[in-house]
Amino acid sequence: MQLVFDDSYFMKKALAEAELAFEKGEIPVGVVVVANQQIIARGHNLTEMLNDVTAHAEMQAITAAANSLGGKYLIDCTMYVTLEPCQMCAGALYWSQLSNLVFAAEDPERGYRKMGGKLHPKTKVKMGVLGEEAGELLKRFFIQKRNLN
Amino acid sequence: MQLVFDDSYFMKKALAEAELAFEKGEIPVGVVVVANQQIIARGHNLTEMLNDVTAHAEMQAITAAANSLGGKYLIDCTMYVTLEPCQMCAGALYWSQLSNLVFAAEDPERGYRKMGGKLHPKTKVKMGVLGEEAGELLKRFFIQKRNLN
Repeated sequence: MQLVFDDSYFMKKALAEAELAFEKGEIPVGVVVVANQQIIARGHNLTEMLNDVTAHAEMQAITAAANSLGGKYLIDCTMYVTLEPCQMCAGALYWSQLSNLVFAAEDPERGYRKMGGKLHPKTKVKMGVLGEEAGELLKRFFIQKRNLN
Repeated sequence: MQLVFDDSYFMKKALAEAELAFEKGEIPVGVVVVANQQIIARGHNLTEMLNDVTAHAEMQAITAAANSLGGKYLIDCTMYVTLEPCQMCAGALYWSQLSNLVFAAEDPERGYRKMGGKLHPKTKVKMGVLGEEAGELLKRFFIQKRNLN
């Protein structure tokens, strides 16, 4: 029997957020933050709409999760994000002391691992959960964008 | 004759922002962003007040400067910040394509250079402008904090 609230379940919720970004013409990246099996924050990339390079899905979700928790540390939280975080988001997650990071697609060019960014030493990382689906969505976005230009 | 609008002039404005943070019990870091010799954004650290690890002075100033410019890239802008940026802020500055970064005090522990973060290849860096003053303010903050605990 499959657990209902497993990593795939929550990553699907993050993918739904990424699709919202897609519909707005934003690079499709989505996030949910989970504490005690409950989603306490959601976010999707809004850099174009807000004209703000800091408006990555993860940044918004960190702020929203802290508001939800009433404290700025995301200890005992899991972030599900559809793309490997960049160094900015990894740096924010470092300060948040996030307990678990799960990401779908890898970002071999701008991901924090390539760029040299560091997560908090206490953060456990799992990658590749629904990686193919997340990668397909990104690919579809960039193909569509190229065809429009 | 000394130029009025030199690096020291703008760093003093950033230090004034840092003092506002100090008065609020925040780690005293301040920023101004300058374009065409004019300050287009200011900010100071508000992580405690906002309960938000992303509320570093630089992050707020990047958002404010983009609002002021009506575009998300800080090309032809100079950021003056009283402390070496962390990897989160360096990552945000990377995306912003900031032209010039001037910082006062170095941060040998959490600064982006130690943490492995990367600025945009086009960003020119100058350090040590009023570094002693900025360092003194930080030292005074941590001494006061220690004495209160």
